Order: sequence, then structure tokens, then C-alpha cells
Amino acid sequence: MKHIAESTVRRLSDYLRFLEELEQQGTRTVSSGELAALGGTTSAQVRKDLSFFGSFGKRGLGYSVAALSKSLREILGLERQWRVAIVGAGKIGGALARYSGFHQRGFHVVHLFDAAGALVGTVIDGVTVKDERTLEATLAAEPVDIVLIAVPSDAAQAVVDRVVKTGVRAILNFAPVPVHVPSTVSLRSVNMALELEFLAYALVNHTR
Amino acid sequence: MKHIAESTVRRLSDYLRFLEELEQQGTRTVSSGELAALGGTTSAQVRKDLSFFGSFGKRGLGYSVAALSKSLREILGLERQWRVAIVGAGKIGGALARYSGFHQRGFHVVHLFDAAGALVGTVIDGVTVKDERTLEATLAAEPVDIVLIAVPSDAAQAVVDRVVKTGVRAILNFAPVPVHVPSTVSLRSVNMALELEFLAYALVNHTR
Repeated sequence: MKHIAESTVRRLSDYLRFLEELEQQGTRTVSSGELAALGGTTSAQVRKDLSFFGSFGKRGLGYSVAALSKSLREILGLERQWRVAIVGAGKIGGALARYSGFHQRGFHVVHLFDAAGALVGTVIDGVTVKDERTLEATLAAEPVDIVLIAVPSDAAQAVVDRVVKTGVRAILNFAPVPVHVPSTVSLRSVNMALELEFLAYALVNHTR
Repeated sequence: MKHIAESTVRRLSDYLRFLEELEQQGTRTVSSGELAALGGTTSAQVRKDLSFFGSFGKRGLGYSVAALSKSLREILGLERQWRVAIVGAGKIGGALARYSGFHQRGFHVVHLFDAAGALVGTVIDGVTVKDERTLEATLAAEPVDIVLIAVPSDAAQAVVDRVVKTGVRAILNFAPVPVHVPSTVSLRSVNMALELEFLAYALVNHTR
């Protein structure tokens, strides 16, 4: 498959959300113009985005909402279920464990780890928090696809290194520090404080 | 001031975090090479990043940790305090209200709003949740600099429109839908489900 830009994946994800809403409303077909209007883009862009993955629509008839949704879910890897572990069950990790949006998209939290004795053994949304020292043994017995890192900054790289050693190939980092992974591992980061800093910077410097 | 790329702001923010750690450890000076090693970049990149803002270091002596920290905080808009409101006090909004990382960087949550009667009047981290219908009146009486949107997807754009009308110029959106703002308003988005989808996409398509 050709390499696809992040901005394209983002738009495909947006299209899918609109298609799912249309499906719920009972709408059968949609034109590239309608998808474009919903996504704040142009119909030419919609057709280009979808052409990456072969031909979907019929000229003049638009796209089948059900068929296009299914194809987009397959392309985006959402047709299957993904097993997720969260390391760090504090405020951020706990909120992530409770976040229903993940579950709806096929991401299932199967393990929660924490280094703090007080949290180990507590139950968050049906998942019992395990001692972080059991991470390797737990992931060997019950592997996951994706690990979310929600530990304090000074612990983040060490936890990432341990997770990588277990063979996990996808990590989402919520600790507000840059972490490093080998080139065989996919890494994404969400840094909420940094997003606020971008806004503060824009307010101070009158940029957008 | 010249327009500065987002990637530069991100690195400046990283440098500042390292400088603050060095300050706490009592370190007085730092070289561009040391900053580069901590930030995973090159000393040439560090010197280039800092040269945007005038001359800081002395050749051979390195940078004063205290002076450089102060300058970076000014550049990034962190020398001042920012007043923040959060709309939506559910799982995500509540976790954001409790997140200590914001407070440490000068972002103070002064208002929390929710549309659900059950949450109105409850207290989260010292802030009483107000009825979302009082948003305009509250922000007129006690304005804020930045608003965080943590409402359900189908309510997001309507809340953003109301916030924009009050004159707020910086919005951070956590609802998992694209929202639109006028060109005078700075908008950033954090979409945690989308970050997971990027990882799923990478796992399915063997990209990074």
C-alpha cells in the first residue's frame, strides 16, 4: 500500500464519523459534495482521498453509506478489536480507562498498571489495577496491541523501554515529555499542557 | 515577531522543561550540546532555535540556566497567569480540571460548566460546576483567556460558537469532532480516539 499522509488519515476518520451518523439516520447514499461540506473540505479532495483505496462511488449516484463506512473501517483498522493496556492509573490514566469513546471504536482496555500500592487492586470500569512490576509477566500471558503511557514524566522513558521489550509495536504517550522508541514501534503523543502552551504562545504573539 | 513554526515552539517547550529541571538541581550554566542531548536534537538546532529570539549564550561559556528559562517563559507566554474555563465536567472535563500539570504552567481553571443538572453545584478541585446556560453571563462578569471544550460531539460546535461570541480568542477542543472558528480565534484540538486510530492504522498497514 502507498504511504498515506497523516492529514489524509485524519480526514478519512472524519468522513467515517459523518457516515456513521448518516447510517444512524437511515441515509443510504451520500455525494462527495455532501461529505465535503460536513468535513469542511472540497468534493475534489474527498474524491482524491477515497481514490487512494480504489473506486467506491458511481458517478451521479454518490457513495453507498454502508459500503463506504465498511471500507473506511477496514482501511483504518477499525473492523477488528484492539487490546489496550494503560500504564499509570492516576487522574489521566483513570480518565482514559473510563473514556467510552475508545470502546466505541473497538479499543478495549484489558490491563491497567500502577506503581502506587494504594491503587493496585482497585477496580476502574471493570478492570482491576495490577502492580506495575507484573507488566512483563502480564503482557507475556495476555498480550495487547497498544499501550497507553500515563505515568509521571520522570518514569515515562523507563516504562516505554520495558513495554517495547515485551514486543508491543504501538504506544500512545500521555506523559508531558518526549520519549524515544525503536524504528519498528509506532509512537503517538498527546501532550495537553503543550497544547495549552501553543495557545498561550498564540495569544502573546498574536499568531494563530 | 517572525512567524515561528509549531515544531520550534514544541522544542522550545522541551528545552524549558529541561532547564527547569537543571534549575531545581542547582545547575547554573548549560551548553547547547547538553540541551541538544536532553532534547534528542543537535546543538546546531538548539542554537538556531534560540537565535530566533536574539542572542542568549556566550561562546564557550554556555547559557545561563536562570536567564534562558526566564526568556523562554516570556517567549512562550508562561511568565503570566492564564485564566481557563472548561465546558463539560464529565469524565474528560473532570480529569482536565484535576490535572495538576496545567496549574504548574500558569493555567488556572476558574470556571467549570456542565449542561447536566446532576453535576451542577458539585465541586471539582475547588471549583463549583456552573450551569452551562450561565456561560455568557459568567464569562462577561469574570472573563477567561482560554476555553477547553469537553462536551459530547453533537454539542461541540454549538458550544464553540457561544464561546467565540463572548470574545474568547483561544480554544482547546477535546470533543472528537472537527469544530470551526473564525480566523481571529486560535484553535487546537486533542482527539484521543483519533490518536489510537492512527496507531491502529499503522499496525494494520505496517507503516510507522
